[in-house]
Amino acid sequence: MTTTTAQIISTLAEGKLTVEVAQTELPEPKGSQILVKMEAAPINPSDLAVLTGPADLAGAEYSPGRFVADMPEPFYSGQKARHGMRLPVGNEGAGEVVAAGDDEYAQSLIGQRVACVPGTAYSEYCIADAMLSLPLGELSSEQGASAFVNPMTALGFVETARAAGQNAIIHTAAASNLGQMLLKICQEDDIALVNIVRKSEQADMLRDMGATHVVNSADEDFFSQLCAAIEETDAYFGFDPIGGGQMTDTCFRAMEQVAARNMSEYSRYGSDQAKKMFIYGRLDLGPTILTPAYGFGWTLSGWLLTPFLQQAGMETVLRMRQRVLEGLTTTFASSYKRKVNLEEMLTREAVLEYSQMKTGEKYLVTP
Amino acid sequence: MTTTTAQIISTLAEGKLTVEVAQTELPEPKGSQILVKMEAAPINPSDLAVLTGPADLAGAEYSPGRFVADMPEPFYSGQKARHGMRLPVGNEGAGEVVAAGDDEYAQSLIGQRVACVPGTAYSEYCIADAMLSLPLGELSSEQGASAFVNPMTALGFVETARAAGQNAIIHTAAASNLGQMLLKICQEDDIALVNIVRKSEQADMLRDMGATHVVNSADEDFFSQLCAAIEETDAYFGFDPIGGGQMTDTCFRAMEQVAARNMSEYSRYGSDQAKKMFIYGRLDLGPTILTPAYGFGWTLSGWLLTPFLQQAGMETVLRMRQRVLEGLTTTFASSYKRKVNLEEMLTREAVLEYSQMKTGEKYLVTP
Repeated sequence: MTTTTAQIISTLAEGKLTVEVAQTELPEPKGSQILVKMEAAPINPSDLAVLTGPADLAGAEYSPGRFVADMPEPFYSGQKARHGMRLPVGNEGAGEVVAAGDDEYAQSLIGQRVACVPGTAYSEYCIADAMLSLPLGELSSEQGASAFVNPMTALGFVETARAAGQNAIIHTAAASNLGQMLLKICQEDDIALVNIVRKSEQADMLRDMGATHVVNSADEDFFSQLCAAIEETDAYFGFDPIGGGQMTDTCFRAMEQVAARNMSEYSRYGSDQAKKMFIYGRLDLGPTILTPAYGFGWTLSGWLLTPFLQQAGMETVLRMRQRVLEGLTTTFASSYKRKVNLEEMLTREAVLEYSQMKTGEKYLVTP
Repeated sequence: MTTTTAQIISTLAEGKLTVEVAQTELPEPKGSQILVKMEAAPINPSDLAVLTGPADLAGAEYSPGRFVADMPEPFYSGQKARHGMRLPVGNEGAGEVVAAGDDEYAQSLIGQRVACVPGTAYSEYCIADAMLSLPLGELSSEQGASAFVNPMTALGFVETARAAGQNAIIHTAAASNLGQMLLKICQEDDIALVNIVRKSEQADMLRDMGATHVVNSADEDFFSQLCAAIEETDAYFGFDPIGGGQMTDTCFRAMEQVAARNMSEYSRYGSDQAKKMFIYGRLDLGPTILTPAYGFGWTLSGWLLTPFLQQAGMETVLRMRQRVLEGLTTTFASSYKRKVNLEEMLTREAVLEYSQMKTGEKYLVTP
């Protein structure tokens, strides 16, 4: 028995991005698959890559349940692999399990509310994997909607740092939802965290949450603040969701200056302090700029949740998930600025707002 | 008993770089130290960082045994740690051991010709570490002068690749002295090598040496040549001495395009093929530009010989050194365009030539 569902579909073709509510037939769930009636799904920055990307949203044509926007170069050609493909959107969400494949565990979820990672979350109904789903018990779908991407990413940073023998982390977008989770995790796990924010209100908010090292990139003495925080914490390991511009470069420069200060002898090749930064998002689609100002003892990597989880192994992933479930209303709680249904999420007003990815202005889709 | 020696000294102060032949007193060698009467020392790109850097060499004032050049910003301020310091120059060279500390091995070297890594190689006499020196036997100092930096770096690339489970390497300056050594090593060790060159003469030279995959960045279809070579070799691991500009970015883009072609399913996050590049030099002091065109499965690192050797451990280093010694007139042979003494190396004509770091135009200092 198939299920008909309304679903947000994003298509890139002939220089234009079309995003629309479309009707799709879902096959019957098989094996460990579950069919979930979706109740809530967040719009995360990682969803926007497919949902909007660098399209000209201000100049787009909006009609009920649909918008069509120009996709500028080099971004149109750069996404060649998806030209003409009809892509569903929405990494994660929560809802009620209404059917399941014949796998025993999947069957046991029928009638329960679960958080899930279908990749098609902006839909009335989704097919998801029972193994990646989290039964929510008494919690609401709104409380469980963001149980995967941000919590597992923030925990993943701490796991990554620990695996590298690090007890201190720099985070360059510390006021974000994810940044606040990371702060709470680091407080619980006694890891030093250097929080970089862009506004003094954000600095105040984090300090109110108990953050010790908060550095505002809008301040004139930002660089010396950052050096001081690195000196105090020994944070030579950082995570950056901005990607474009010079934020990772600035962190490397500050790390090197602090390390060089503590050297007994001058070296033409820079300090021998290993410095590592990870880019885990692309809030800025411009190029990443690295200046030759910190020798050769540095590493810059992309960081993505799925390969991290694959590498981490089942035991680590289960431990992380259990911790998320226990902290879903505290450490891992998310807040939303506005709720929209599938049609409302494609209006000009909504698109122009959530595509800004402003801190504290997250949208929740309630299909 | 101290030894008086003429020595090249580089000093950065008050916006100016002064390089001169100066007289220095060397202390008596102690422990495992040896005193070497230097006969030959190459000018490597790694020496130029201290010797000339981005100073205005064309506009400099030259007098016998000395030049004074403006050091432009931001490079002057960027090298704050060395302002006012009198730095000797010259990583490596070869000569005759004339005295030694009381260490037994050091004593046994007296009267022998050795390759050594004193860091002060542009001098009549140097203090070096016997443990890092290589007895040359019947070989001349000219044959042994470049026994350390290029051979150990080229071997280090192969060791690094092997440790990461790689059987193919991209090298972005393949026609250089080091590039030719790497080609021979890869031929001996059956590792696929993608050679990127800038001129068709260089491509011809490498093909004459038996190179299979040679790609010319000056060709219009460079990018598709590079993709084809990656497809044939599975080279997702590369080394780049240029640093500035977009060469590493280009390699990452080509790797990703090849990996994406071979994917069965479209992924918004790019391929899951791990891509790794190392920057081991700064022939271009401009910023490194990374575009957001290859997902998050990439790592860019600095690579430097000394920390690599420290990490590799004594056994690996001894094995590498033995191989260098055996191949010093074949695999690891260096050639020089011109020989200069200490005064001649500071003339306008010489400085302007060797500071270009042109392929095949290496200088040898014979104090």
